[in-house]
Amino acid sequence: MNYSLVQGILGRLLIGYSLTMLVPLILAFFSKESSQWALLLSLVITACIGLLMYRFRESTDGKMGIRESFVIVAGAWFLTSFLGALPFWISGSVPTYIDALFESVSGLTTTGSSVINDVEILPSSILLWRSITHWLGGMGIIVLFIILLPKTGFGAVHLFNAEVPGPLSKRTMPRIRDTAITLWRIYTFFTLVLIGLLLAAGLDLFDAVNHAFSTVSAGGFSTKNTSIMHYNNLAVESIIIVFVIIAGGNYRLYLEAWTKKSLKPFRNTEFITYLIIIIVSTLLIMGGLWLTHDKTPDYALRHALFQVVSMVTGTGFVSTDYDLWPAITKLILFVLMFIGGCAGSTTGGMKIARIMLLAKHTWSMLTRGLHPQAVSSIKLDGKPINAAAVNMVSLFFFLYVGIFAIATILIAGTGLEPMDAMSSVAASLGNVGPGFGIVGPTTTFASITLFGKSVLILCMLLGRLELFTLLILLRPEFWKTKSRW
Amino acid sequence: MNYSLVQGILGRLLIGYSLTMLVPLILAFFSKESSQWALLLSLVITACIGLLMYRFRESTDGKMGIRESFVIVAGAWFLTSFLGALPFWISGSVPTYIDALFESVSGLTTTGSSVINDVEILPSSILLWRSITHWLGGMGIIVLFIILLPKTGFGAVHLFNAEVPGPLSKRTMPRIRDTAITLWRIYTFFTLVLIGLLLAAGLDLFDAVNHAFSTVSAGGFSTKNTSIMHYNNLAVESIIIVFVIIAGGNYRLYLEAWTKKSLKPFRNTEFITYLIIIIVSTLLIMGGLWLTHDKTPDYALRHALFQVVSMVTGTGFVSTDYDLWPAITKLILFVLMFIGGCAGSTTGGMKIARIMLLAKHTWSMLTRGLHPQAVSSIKLDGKPINAAAVNMVSLFFFLYVGIFAIATILIAGTGLEPMDAMSSVAASLGNVGPGFGIVGPTTTFASITLFGKSVLILCMLLGRLELFTLLILLRPEFWKTKSRW
Ligand SMILES: [K+]
Ligand SMILES: [K+]
Repeated sequence: MNYSLVQGILGRLLIGYSLTMLVPLILAFFSKESSQWALLLSLVITACIGLLMYRFRESTDGKMGIRESFVIVAGAWFLTSFLGALPFWISGSVPTYIDALFESVSGLTTTGSSVINDVEILPSSILLWRSITHWLGGMGIIVLFIILLPKTGFGAVHLFNAEVPGPLSKRTMPRIRDTAITLWRIYTFFTLVLIGLLLAAGLDLFDAVNHAFSTVSAGGFSTKNTSIMHYNNLAVESIIIVFVIIAGGNYRLYLEAWTKKSLKPFRNTEFITYLIIIIVSTLLIMGGLWLTHDKTPDYALRHALFQVVSMVTGTGFVSTDYDLWPAITKLILFVLMFIGGCAGSTTGGMKIARIMLLAKHTWSMLTRGLHPQAVSSIKLDGKPINAAAVNMVSLFFFLYVGIFAIATILIAGTGLEPMDAMSSVAASLGNVGPGFGIVGPTTTFASITLFGKSVLILCMLLGRLELFTLLILLRPEFWKTKSRW
Repeated sequence: MNYSLVQGILGRLLIGYSLTMLVPLILAFFSKESSQWALLLSLVITACIGLLMYRFRESTDGKMGIRESFVIVAGAWFLTSFLGALPFWISGSVPTYIDALFESVSGLTTTGSSVINDVEILPSSILLWRSITHWLGGMGIIVLFIILLPKTGFGAVHLFNAEVPGPLSKRTMPRIRDTAITLWRIYTFFTLVLIGLLLAAGLDLFDAVNHAFSTVSAGGFSTKNTSIMHYNNLAVESIIIVFVIIAGGNYRLYLEAWTKKSLKPFRNTEFITYLIIIIVSTLLIMGGLWLTHDKTPDYALRHALFQVVSMVTGTGFVSTDYDLWPAITKLILFVLMFIGGCAGSTTGGMKIARIMLLAKHTWSMLTRGLHPQAVSSIKLDGKPINAAAVNMVSLFFFLYVGIFAIATILIAGTGLEPMDAMSSVAASLGNVGPGFGIVGPTTTFASITLFGKSVLILCMLLGRLELFTLLILLRPEFWKTKSRW
């Protein structure tokens, strides 16, 4: 392990991260908010740690291997989480450091769960910092899964990728930098367009910026206690629906469409399936609302569609108190929390590509009962999927469900009822945000114990890094200096 | 497809099945119960259908292939379910035929869910028929998975089996018959010993026989409304705990131990893991009961152990109203419902062998992030597991969870609350019996709508036949006469 290289890269990352704290700091300064000192102190601490790490690394060069990449990824998420919590903690916005860490992890993982019951009394600079963590985390995850992780076979994007996984080489580095810059451009473009549209729909600049950050990242933090419900504005909801759907799409498609100036990339099986899932779920929930809940058709369409896209993309915005809806509609939303959006998007969950692949493969493998030596050969978008990829996807599914079960039992141990425990874990692991019951659309995670919050923090990070990326660090051979890899 | 052969075998099976109805019929005759006419009519109908099928088959010989085996298995479960429902329906014990079918499927799949609120007012002959369906179903499933299905790679028993899957050959037929007879002997031996012990513990002959049938099959029907709670007898509970644990073990081990007169076969990883799961779950639940429920240590040990073995084996006996327990203990029981007992036992669920295999494989495959061409080679009991077997196990897991999710949504559509819907489906798919909430330990499935009952009937059959065995019939090529297999 080239610790020196890892330290240098993480140091530079923290220096850059500290500079993003300048944005809320400037706002606090001009608004004369007391939180300016908390933000300044957080910025200085973050910058100092970054500078010290960068300055006191042992050597200035070295080889970047796969193991270094994993340590950098995990280190980046942990360090930015720990330091991103400082503004919340120092400003006194939350009672304990664990609460601040929860808020920071929830921001950076684009989960959007909050432990703050009344966000409207917080300084606007602190609210802006919350939204910035979403925006940075959303972009971070796209770069991670589109650019870095396809090489490892751990993500789901590689399923559409004919490239053979392998270590990063010096040769591919310039291309990677270009791709990253284009991705940032697309992401920023979406954000700016959304800010403009929200302003046009009547939001003030502060709310427009914050909600745009929360939307493009599929994050879900709001500057209002009642989320999007606060505005009760059909135009705002419609705009957000469109951009939340965009947030749930694969950025590889956007990248191709952007560089080739063509809409052809959207003829992608996963993307089409994603739209079909949204339409079918919306119709089912509309049916459920009509039949058992005496709602008008326009209420049903508006809120069913809003909550379906909000849940399947794991954004977690709330347009109405869906916790009062009939059980079948809640269970459909609950299942959507597990499915998630497309691979290579800012959304959480298992990802539609994985579920599609497993469904196709299972159907194909039923023939094994007739022909025991049968080998499944399935294709996605015309490209054959190799057996190793299918294998990793099915283990991902097993791990996801297994971690869900264990975490649910742990959370239930803190006193939550079964459905509350399940939905708090599903919402955290899937980076959704709000769930049902005591962690429902009109409540927060404040009432959960510190142990419970710690479990959920771990769930958010595991879900965000798609399990394997973190869990690989548990393998003892990962840390052996003399390695056969 | 050799329909003639299938028809002949199913005909003979029904003739044999009709003869088992003689047992409750004789009881009804001597007890002068009005149900004697219902039983006689059911017997005659079943016997006639069997005779007609056997008599009017086209040819008297033919080749038995894999496809014929699958049709016979599915046909046997469906026909015995439909005809086994007749006594309940004709005797008026239940209001509709769907209710009767629910009771019959629940019996034959050894689920033990009931739609009858007050079983104590039923004629004893009808209760005995319920228990007999358990006993027959339990034996049927052992023969199916130990003898027939290992050849297909669909079951979990083959994971411990070095034999290469392949079609049944004439050469192996005599050996299969011997094995089947030995299995029946062991099963009958357990039943008789249990009847003796329950008599010694103070039960009358009728209750002892019925509960013995329900226990060795991991079924769970009781002749008392409050199940084992009715007796409040520590000796009875202890005896049942031991035999329920036996019911959850792999009959391949019992077969080896029986024929070799040795205890060595029990040094089996799955069996040991099974015992460890029971011990750990019991300790966790005892802890939960002590800390949050103010129960005495002996209450906690007694009922925690009873409910853990009852749930992990999917027997579904009840020694106390565990629905009043704290959430964490209920969630542990809920997870146990999914895990199930050992492969090749009478229990339902996913089976411990499958979960073990997936956990081992996942741990091993984490290295793929370091070495993308890594191939996992894992062993169970020293025998290497081939990649195809691991593949089938992970698809089984995916299918099980997927069917659980879909059925839960369907059941919620009939008006059940989320947790009630989940537990009714988990209890049916895992062949457990009672769940939580409105299908809890002190209630029945009577309040569920006919559509809901139909969904649960399908879940019971799918779970009992381990999904693939039924689902393969959905593949169009299965039914093509000219087949390359
Ligand atoms: K979110
Ligand atoms: K059962």
